[in-house]
Amino acid sequence: MTTIRDIAEALGVSVSTVSKGLNGGKDISDALRQTILEKAVELGYVNRKAIKAENRKLCIFIENISYESSGDFGYDIVLGYRQAASKEGWAVDIVRTTPSFQNEQKYDTFMLEHGYSGSFIMGFALEDPWMDQFMNTKIPTVLLDNAVPANPYVCYVGTDNNEGIDLAIEHLLKLGHEKIAFLNGSNNSLVSDQRMSAYLASLSRHHLPIDPALAVYGYYVADAAHYHVPNLLSAGATAIICGNDLIAEGTIESLKKEGYGVPEDVSVIGFDDIPTAEHTDPPLTTVHQDRLSLGRNGYYVLHAMLNQVAQSISLLRPSITLRSSTALARPRLVTDRVIDKDSVMYVNPELYGQKFR
Amino acid sequence: MTTIRDIAEALGVSVSTVSKGLNGGKDISDALRQTILEKAVELGYVNRKAIKAENRKLCIFIENISYESSGDFGYDIVLGYRQAASKEGWAVDIVRTTPSFQNEQKYDTFMLEHGYSGSFIMGFALEDPWMDQFMNTKIPTVLLDNAVPANPYVCYVGTDNNEGIDLAIEHLLKLGHEKIAFLNGSNNSLVSDQRMSAYLASLSRHHLPIDPALAVYGYYVADAAHYHVPNLLSAGATAIICGNDLIAEGTIESLKKEGYGVPEDVSVIGFDDIPTAEHTDPPLTTVHQDRLSLGRNGYYVLHAMLNQVAQSISLLRPSITLRSSTALARPRLVTDRVIDKDSVMYVNPELYGQKFR
Repeated sequence: MTTIRDIAEALGVSVSTVSKGLNGGKDISDALRQTILEKAVELGYVNRKAIKAENRKLCIFIENISYESSGDFGYDIVLGYRQAASKEGWAVDIVRTTPSFQNEQKYDTFMLEHGYSGSFIMGFALEDPWMDQFMNTKIPTVLLDNAVPANPYVCYVGTDNNEGIDLAIEHLLKLGHEKIAFLNGSNNSLVSDQRMSAYLASLSRHHLPIDPALAVYGYYVADAAHYHVPNLLSAGATAIICGNDLIAEGTIESLKKEGYGVPEDVSVIGFDDIPTAEHTDPPLTTVHQDRLSLGRNGYYVLHAMLNQVAQSISLLRPSITLRSSTALARPRLVTDRVIDKDSVMYVNPELYGQKFR
Repeated sequence: MTTIRDIAEALGVSVSTVSKGLNGGKDISDALRQTILEKAVELGYVNRKAIKAENRKLCIFIENISYESSGDFGYDIVLGYRQAASKEGWAVDIVRTTPSFQNEQKYDTFMLEHGYSGSFIMGFALEDPWMDQFMNTKIPTVLLDNAVPANPYVCYVGTDNNEGIDLAIEHLLKLGHEKIAFLNGSNNSLVSDQRMSAYLASLSRHHLPIDPALAVYGYYVADAAHYHVPNLLSAGATAIICGNDLIAEGTIESLKKEGYGVPEDVSVIGFDDIPTAEHTDPPLTTVHQDRLSLGRNGYYVLHAMLNQVAQSISLLRPSITLRSSTALARPRLVTDRVIDKDSVMYVNPELYGQKFR
């Protein structure tokens, strides 16, 4: 195990200088402190002070996600993380980052300098400078909805997108829908790629044909819906699952503008269950991610990693929140279809009966 | 929250009778005790005594896996679980089960009767009677290498098979192999299905063609290798990844019998790194599952679930243990291939140079 003496010898400075550099002493230059921290990281130095009960500190790094007030998407995630961590004696700091902040300091040295034993990373983009550094860090690091390959010190946490998309498709099948479109977010994020794969796999599992015209990538902005919705309708969609709730809101607006009723003509399902989802018109049926649990899990995974368990992936169970943006498929759409014994087994005539008898 | 009084009223017996039934009192019949336990489970009764620090008990149910001595596959898993659990104040019982044991008692009533707060399930088969009961249990339950859909009280833990197969394929690509076969275990287990998908996905990611003759299911017995190995060789395989170490051992035997040298003629990789893998001839290169960590993770996932986090999947990072059953591909096999810019980018000429210059 690397000691302060090893660092001092490697740099040709005194032990007390290294100690000042590592522990925030005042009378050394910033440049020297940085050199000491970087050498310490290079040699794999672990600050044992940080492990003592009275110094236990974790850090949440946030980018692109609001968390300050209770209506914000990140609020419950941060709250859940803090709750779980403080219950087991950890203080938690929150640091907002930007790409330029990440360019200015290295992740490992920042962590060592501030005595953090591990971190939780929220809202980072694939091109963020620290994402590359996470490939090789030796500090336990938990990424929300992001993954890096092979590093045993880094784990990806999120919600089980396969199960989430399955819940949406099974809900629509019970309502008699057969032409179910998927309007996804942008195609350069881990989560939207997983949701697209999940959509294709779920259709196969339910013996439904895959129509490329019904499976499209948009962007993570509601506006994208305006371009795609008319095409999905031309391709025969009676229901549209959206890659996230913002796209679903845009989809509902587009449908109304084109003269379609939601849910009478077309059903719409979102993903995430963000705080505004219950205030759309109609209120949005959506796959629910439990944000408090996402935060708590961020801590529990770190807890396992701090106990030498190299987790790779940890996913939560989603649920589906049923509101008013989904309804029975219009009967004409059901009678129009080509009858095929295998593909109609899920159509429950009693459901039609309820509405149309 | 259901109380003892609720159970007593539902059954028309006294509160003290119910208390005896739930807490192992002697002077009631077994039949009545069973009725009381089943009603308690039906009403969602939680034994608060079991949550008190001095009574904290967990259970490991084991089937089909040996764990009694240090050479057994299950030994380190059980040890890791016990270590992590006891560190946080839990006693752990181990119960060996059989299908008939499972038929005789219901899972939930067994757990309630013995005051267990959660369990870890090792080695169950898909057709085991309790697998159905896990679909609806409300007792936190962690399944090793098994999954049930949608139940927020049940989580699947294991090793990341995608990453494991990727490690094997990348190791072989660096050695110049192009025709890499996959001889899997039986096709009715979660793990072998995942390993097959991982194999196909990894080939695609590396721009290698998929040849159905190179991707076959055997069974979880070494003997299956004898039937499959000649076919894999006819299809041009220079390396065989096996779905588990036992199949790899059988594969090495078959190759020798057919007059092929391992690794000079054909490279072989296993999966699991069971205790005997280092004693095969030649010693087996294999994807390593860290069994101590698998056990520890079983506990840490339960810890999260006991804190209201509904985990669905929790996977560990694998690594690859390099021994002597893999080597550079024979040069003739390299020169035989059709040259295609995209598919040869991974062939590192320096590696050939080392051996053949």
